Amino acid sequence: MGLIAELEADFVTADPDVLAGYRFDQAGFGTAGVPIALARPTETAEVVQILRVASRHRIPVVPQGARTGLSGGANAIDGAILLSLERMTRILDIDEVNHTATVQPGVVNAVLSQAVEGKGLFYPPDPGSWESSTIGGNVATNAGGLCCVKYGVTSDFVRELEVVLADGRVLRTGRRTAKGVAGYDLVRLFTGSEGTLGVITEVTVALRAVAEAPLTAVAFFASPPAACRTVTEYLSAGQRPSVLELMDKPTIDAVAAYRDLGFPADVEAVLIAQSDRGPAAPQDLEAFAKVARTCGATEVLVASDRAEADMLIAARRLAGVAMERLGDRLVDDVCVPRSRLAEFFEGVTAISRKHDVLIPTCGHAGDGNMHPNVVFDGSDPDSVRRGRAAFDAIMALGLELGGTITGEHGVGTLKRDWLETELGEVGVSVHQAVKQAFDPLGILNPGKVVRQLT
Amino acid sequence: MGLIAELEADFVTADPDVLAGYRFDQAGFGTAGVPIALARPTETAEVVQILRVASRHRIPVVPQGARTGLSGGANAIDGAILLSLERMTRILDIDEVNHTATVQPGVVNAVLSQAVEGKGLFYPPDPGSWESSTIGGNVATNAGGLCCVKYGVTSDFVRELEVVLADGRVLRTGRRTAKGVAGYDLVRLFTGSEGTLGVITEVTVALRAVAEAPLTAVAFFASPPAACRTVTEYLSAGQRPSVLELMDKPTIDAVAAYRDLGFPADVEAVLIAQSDRGPAAPQDLEAFAKVARTCGATEVLVASDRAEADMLIAARRLAGVAMERLGDRLVDDVCVPRSRLAEFFEGVTAISRKHDVLIPTCGHAGDGNMHPNVVFDGSDPDSVRRGRAAFDAIMALGLELGGTITGEHGVGTLKRDWLETELGEVGVSVHQAVKQAFDPLGILNPGKVVRQLT
Repeated sequence: MGLIAELEADFVTADPDVLAGYRFDQAGFGTAGVPIALARPTETAEVVQILRVASRHRIPVVPQGARTGLSGGANAIDGAILLSLERMTRILDIDEVNHTATVQPGVVNAVLSQAVEGKGLFYPPDPGSWESSTIGGNVATNAGGLCCVKYGVTSDFVRELEVVLADGRVLRTGRRTAKGVAGYDLVRLFTGSEGTLGVITEVTVALRAVAEAPLTAVAFFASPPAACRTVTEYLSAGQRPSVLELMDKPTIDAVAAYRDLGFPADVEAVLIAQSDRGPAAPQDLEAFAKVARTCGATEVLVASDRAEADMLIAARRLAGVAMERLGDRLVDDVCVPRSRLAEFFEGVTAISRKHDVLIPTCGHAGDGNMHPNVVFDGSDPDSVRRGRAAFDAIMALGLELGGTITGEHGVGTLKRDWLETELGEVGVSVHQAVKQAFDPLGILNPGKVVRQLT
Repeated sequence: MGLIAELEADFVTADPDVLAGYRFDQAGFGTAGVPIALARPTETAEVVQILRVASRHRIPVVPQGARTGLSGGANAIDGAILLSLERMTRILDIDEVNHTATVQPGVVNAVLSQAVEGKGLFYPPDPGSWESSTIGGNVATNAGGLCCVKYGVTSDFVRELEVVLADGRVLRTGRRTAKGVAGYDLVRLFTGSEGTLGVITEVTVALRAVAEAPLTAVAFFASPPAACRTVTEYLSAGQRPSVLELMDKPTIDAVAAYRDLGFPADVEAVLIAQSDRGPAAPQDLEAFAKVARTCGATEVLVASDRAEADMLIAARRLAGVAMERLGDRLVDDVCVPRSRLAEFFEGVTAISRKHDVLIPTCGHAGDGNMHPNVVFDGSDPDSVRRGRAAFDAIMALGLELGGTITGEHGVGTLKRDWLETELGEVGVSVHQAVKQAFDPLGILNPGKVVRQLT
């Protein structure tokens, strides 16, 4: 068969056992098709080769990073070539004068972060998956993280991209300068497009000087809405914390079962705040404590040393792993205006009761970006049904509060129907026109994000 | 004639005298066609009406803000309807909790800035034209300004847009939340697209809490490259000034002829630096002074009071007006990596000599974004020829140094050929595909930014 012959290369395999390990990302309710091949290129030229063959034979191509995504964006499609960028792991340049780094897409976020830190520099985007997710995947999904509340998301740091287009042509777009308006902002268009418009093969990101070591405070509340009001009031007053995270009681319980946190009993919500403004940090956290107490905090503590601060952030970062013990789960991701956070929590509580589903909720409260974790038992059809109903209700709630169905996880397959609701008819039609312009044959991650025109 | 009848509305005029006043923006070397009508709507529905008629009859539409642009993007086209948004001046909402403002596109930047300042809020983008340019125009060109070095450009603040598409459909895109990845980033695609993809009829921008009053320093140098080295070294060390502006001697001379600055004699370049970090500002400026002296500054002064500081910033902002007295001029706009700033200045000096053209240069040095002002005599063909040659040489220099042909002014008609050089063949082709997807009939500001496929 001509197709298989054309695909024959040492970086391509059709071994079903190997393919099986690459079918899924980490989305809940995930479904995946059966791929025909897995390509693991190390160079742009090899990506070009794959896309030329795919174009010629109209074979779907599914770009993949570390498959830590939570929306099914990297899940396999029947008959597709899986195009894993995990072996493109070279850091090509760290520019200490202009504060940029240029990397292949398979470089792991933590590897880049540590490499630049060694030179006194700082790459802020820090998704929960940062120890394993790749820069290419972070760009493809426009990943967020804990630092976003002060520093912004991945797209705020992407300056230049090399992208292999559907037909195998190589596009360089964007620029390395601090500013630039020469032509359309294609860098932002590719960022967050989940592999549906092109395959990212090189990324230049902006860096900052390393921040001062943060000071950390924790506030305990008798109800999540009290914590939400603290967030709203603290930020409205003009504060810019470097971290402002919320965990509710079911989340805290899950983490505490994993590691002793020494939190007081009867806590229904906790806020973790950081300031990295050096000498100004103590007054930032004093202001935080004051607002928290006014909003009903039962206790506010400032971490006395770096170890205590690290423990608090580690507790927040453990939430994901800790909740995996609770059962199957769908990590949801809604972003609402911060003024509506308290209502969002009340709504999730009502949904949890109505559908009899445990929904531990935590997230980047400072951005209004929360992660309700819908816990279900995948082997029990009724539990799955209730979980799905809760998921739908959470999407509807987010939109009702003026929010979006996804703050940082993306659309993939999980939220494609809800995306149509959020975008509306004109929005969907424009998305389809853009998709058509970049991928007229519909081979790039088809069926993800947006249904293509046929 | 059906067309004129269809266009008949109280917000449309065909009076040639009125039309004549709307043919040009402020670009040097500007050419403009003869329009057939001027529409000045006050509501989105009226913009829809214009675009439906224009689509039906395939009439070009040229969207206009305050026509303060510097690249010909708002210049008339033969047979076009000029669509001025200057009467859409309502501030629709200022949200003091979520820190956003929603405005019609004709709201003047300074009007919005002052309105939000009254509520303790801050809209940072501050192009040189901020007292007259509109938010819609700022978004359409992705305008920059003095504050960008710390706060970013217009696009960093745009959250949601209402856009009337070429066929008259109304698209709402983006969101009001702090984060969001639901679908492609169309907000960024429209931002900076210079009216070639749609007509912006409503803008929601993010605001910040009002900054602390800045402290200001000024450093004098015996050569521009010494000032450039100060910029590079100061920023590479991790400093984040809120303003870092450079003026060379011809610029200083022009401003001094306009208003006495009390600068020392024999100054070849001046840097103006601000820090708005409150209690940390004095140490920021001390660090600035130290770097400047190491790099050869002949004198460094810290403004002793607000009036002195305001005078320095006013001097920088006067550069434009002051240089108008020198003759005809083309305000150029190149952005290079900051490590190449000194070479850029040396190159401009050589170009000035080679082509015997005065090129006072000033700009946002912290971003590597400089404005060489090519001065010529429009009534002297040889002077025009030399001016054009200098302009081309500056573009080539910017690209050679790894920069871009425009940091903040845009492409319009002035730099369309140079844009093709910067983007390359694949880049141009992708731009054309995007343009085609949004404007298949080619009625939206045709011939600006990118040549359309025919």
